[in-house]
Amino acid sequence: MSKTDPGNYFEDFRLGQVLVHATPRTVTAGDVALYTALYGTRFALFSSEAFAKDCGFPHAAVDPLIAFHIVFGKTVPDISLNAVANLGYAEGRFHKLLTDGMTLSAKSEVIGLKENSNRKTGVVYVRTTGMDEFGETVLSYVRWVMVRKRDQNVEISEQFVPALEEAVAPDQLIVPAGLDFSAYDYALAGAPHAFEDYAIGEKIDHVDGMAIEEAEHAMATRLWQNTAKVHFNQFERAKDPSGRRLVYGGVVISTAKALSFNGLQNAGLILAINGGRHVSPYFAGGTVFAWSEVLDKADLGSVGALRLRLVATVDRPCGDFPGKDEAGAYADGVILDFDYWAAVPKRG
Amino acid sequence: MSKTDPGNYFEDFRLGQVLVHATPRTVTAGDVALYTALYGTRFALFSSEAFAKDCGFPHAAVDPLIAFHIVFGKTVPDISLNAVANLGYAEGRFHKLLTDGMTLSAKSEVIGLKENSNRKTGVVYVRTTGMDEFGETVLSYVRWVMVRKRDQNVEISEQFVPALEEAVAPDQLIVPAGLDFSAYDYALAGAPHAFEDYAIGEKIDHVDGMAIEEAEHAMATRLWQNTAKVHFNQFERAKDPSGRRLVYGGVVISTAKALSFNGLQNAGLILAINGGRHVSPYFAGGTVFAWSEVLDKADLGSVGALRLRLVATVDRPCGDFPGKDEAGAYADGVILDFDYWAAVPKRG
Amino acid sequence: MSKTDPGNYFEDFRLGQVLVHATPRTVTAGDVALYTALYGTRFALFSSEAFAKDCGFPHAAVDPLIAFHIVFGKTVPDISLNAVANLGYAEGRFHKLLTDGMTLSAKSEVIGLKENSNRKTGVVYVRTTGMDEFGETVLSYVRWVMVRKRDQNVEISEQFVPALEEAVAPDQLIVPAGLDFSAYDYALAGAPHAFEDYAIGEKIDHVDGMAIEEAEHAMATRLWQNTAKVHFNQFERAKDPSGRRLVYGGVVISTAKALSFNGLQNAGLILAINGGRHVSPYFAGGTVFAWSEVLDKADLGSVGALRLRLVATVDRPCGDFPGKDEAGAYADGVILDFDYWAAVPKRG
Repeated sequence: MSKTDPGNYFEDFRLGQVLVHATPRTVTAGDVALYTALYGTRFALFSSEAFAKDCGFPHAAVDPLIAFHIVFGKTVPDISLNAVANLGYAEGRFHKLLTDGMTLSAKSEVIGLKENSNRKTGVVYVRTTGMDEFGETVLSYVRWVMVRKRDQNVEISEQFVPALEEAVAPDQLIVPAGLDFSAYDYALAGAPHAFEDYAIGEKIDHVDGMAIEEAEHAMATRLWQNTAKVHFNQFERAKDPSGRRLVYGGVVISTAKALSFNGLQNAGLILAINGGRHVSPYFAGGTVFAWSEVLDKADLGSVGALRLRLVATVDRPCGDFPGKDEAGAYADGVILDFDYWAAVPKRG
Repeated sequence: MSKTDPGNYFEDFRLGQVLVHATPRTVTAGDVALYTALYGTRFALFSSEAFAKDCGFPHAAVDPLIAFHIVFGKTVPDISLNAVANLGYAEGRFHKLLTDGMTLSAKSEVIGLKENSNRKTGVVYVRTTGMDEFGETVLSYVRWVMVRKRDQNVEISEQFVPALEEAVAPDQLIVPAGLDFSAYDYALAGAPHAFEDYAIGEKIDHVDGMAIEEAEHAMATRLWQNTAKVHFNQFERAKDPSGRRLVYGGVVISTAKALSFNGLQNAGLILAINGGRHVSPYFAGGTVFAWSEVLDKADLGSVGALRLRLVATVDRPCGDFPGKDEAGAYADGVILDFDYWAAVPKRG
Repeated sequence: MSKTDPGNYFEDFRLGQVLVHATPRTVTAGDVALYTALYGTRFALFSSEAFAKDCGFPHAAVDPLIAFHIVFGKTVPDISLNAVANLGYAEGRFHKLLTDGMTLSAKSEVIGLKENSNRKTGVVYVRTTGMDEFGETVLSYVRWVMVRKRDQNVEISEQFVPALEEAVAPDQLIVPAGLDFSAYDYALAGAPHAFEDYAIGEKIDHVDGMAIEEAEHAMATRLWQNTAKVHFNQFERAKDPSGRRLVYGGVVISTAKALSFNGLQNAGLILAINGGRHVSPYFAGGTVFAWSEVLDKADLGSVGALRLRLVATVDRPCGDFPGKDEAGAYADGVILDFDYWAAVPKRG
């Protein structure tokens, strides 16, 4: 039998199955430097160890999106190597602050299976948990993905579509242990805006644009040990009508999040991912723009939380806030519609 | 009012104004590895912790140019987001050795303002100071930059052009605390040349050439959290006659400095920046060459110092030392004319 | 006399000569992160500090190929700056585990010299040793390279072709101090295959393909401070019939080794390099594929060792195991034929 791993096909998954993913990964200052070089992120909490300490953490804080990318990457060989499309995320929560030196590993439970009517593909729902080296949960989220069947004729008996929360409820948000914004330095952080200054419905154009090269997205995706062939195998992609490698959707998320600094300087710390949709594929060379909308606010006591919608476009500045019309159709150029909660300091 | 930061225009600056720049930044081994990967620098003092210890430092020494790039990057959103051109540097001094783990922050004082006769732009002079997490000065330098006016009709009352030193005087040079070249290992450093071996007027062709890709300069510039739009926003740059992103001038400085290893192996440690001019814009794809001239020498007691002129060209080898003619016109291909002091070991 | 280093020509080498190479280099977590970003390597032993500790090491283990690249890079300015071609490797052994914080330096002894009949070039054989900051050997290997003569008319008196082992004998393999696979976690490592599961003659197609961009190979090569002009000087390379920069052969080795994870998940730790041939030059843009063959097995007591042949191709999937025919001619697309020993866990 071949030792090469062909990945799982739709009929290989079982409801309740738990997959232990390979390649635990220690996060280091090298990852943090590369994250800055690849996305240009500027949130003070993740840029300065001194700032993180002034916010109550014992040492440098690492962007929770790095935990997300690493854990997501680990699931690819088992969950989405034979995927047609990544359909969505839900119920993502960060339980514990990511720090330099932490070793992440991941497992996924199959919580839903739904064959498509064409019988060629099906949707797999998994709840993925990322853990540190002590087995403590660092993050968990649900992802669903359309996966090919190896054999179209196989009968799929057990099917189930899980009910998922539309958003993480405020009382389910976890403020990382130690976080204390009482001495928050707004000048060093880059803007004076506190929780009280944001209004539900407020829209912010992040103005700046960022082009991404093939080398950049490929390095970012390899860094997270994400092995999806569409990002790397140009020989195979040349046969696709686009002729191009697809960029990992997480590159768009992190790029848009970095751009959001301009207007959301104090909302760097993601607490939860409510949902996300990669509206259109993104190819290297295009310039990414982004805008945000405040969907909700929650007072968590010591800190505030903003529920934010982050929309990214390609080659289209966002001064007119391009989004989705009433019929659900997206404006030209939109590539990402992402929904998350972030912690922000309260004025007190 | 919008939360997006539009940056300052010429009429927003006031003489004596102090701007506290955002996003303090902790320097790590990750930054050092990326610096090596992006520029190919080979100076032993910054490459080997063991070599740095043998030169009297308690641990690894980090290239002072990294401090310069980080501090420069912090000033961009406040000083040069609406700049037309970066015009010059002067009076740059490194007060303290940069080390792994140091957190840099920056502030700038406006020391000069001069409106241009077209009333559309003006020149802003700032003295920028980079500090560590204890508030101690790590470096300071003057920069002047041409900035757009928001409103051409605004009257600019207060104007002043500061007098700047043509070069940092030898008695103003600071030898980093601890530096001791008495056991300097010339073989490990790569060349036998000591302070005594360099003559004023001597020219050195650094021979090697280095091409830079779009991904490389963009990563380098994001690493320093430099947000100038011309380096990243390809959608906007497509409207420029060049159609191309401009490369951050600091990329050329660091590339040329890395090339200067071949001939200046023992002059890695910059003590001061006397001046610098980005003679022509550089676009990715061109091959950078460089040559140096010894402008002056100073015996600082424990170590020697060379005042060096570093000239970089694009797609033009430097065997004939292309520079500036008597009328002040630069030879074709010259992109940088940089003037600095470096420490070198004395033979004893 | 010029301070620029022109590199050595064939007639500059002497049998028995020892060259101390410049620029000692401290390995850090930054190098490890870049290695992951540039090649996408996934071997658990080098990815997780926790996994390395469970394998008996006191802290994080760093891929021995990083030691090889760094030491190789140091030799370039002295050995192969004027080289026409890198011809082969032999007798490569890793004596000591590479760890984060170790400072590597290198020296080479000239063990062979053979002028070519055209009298324009000759082959230089060197035994290179990489040492840590205590002077202990980390690795050693023989390399031979064709080098230009400066002056075709110079007589070469002393010539000698050393006898080299076809492969490192099993009793010459060094198991790194501390290595203990008795608690090896096959699930976290990504596959259940132990020493006992591999058969001599077995071939494994690694399936995945990886495209490499100009920026990626240039960054990888600069990271190792390898200065060979053919990788960087595009202005000069434009005069070559290819018009392109050559990719450092080590980039192909590390890319193919990373691809080999798919089928050789538990054979990440290289113990020895038996030989290697860069069959054809590789240019950026091509997609690299790879396959392996088990050439031999050795039971080292606490662990097993596999002698593996790793073949890499460009733009040619390896399902049919393209190699060398009986006349010694390689199949189209083959760019690397590499022969090494790797440690693997025994089932017990």
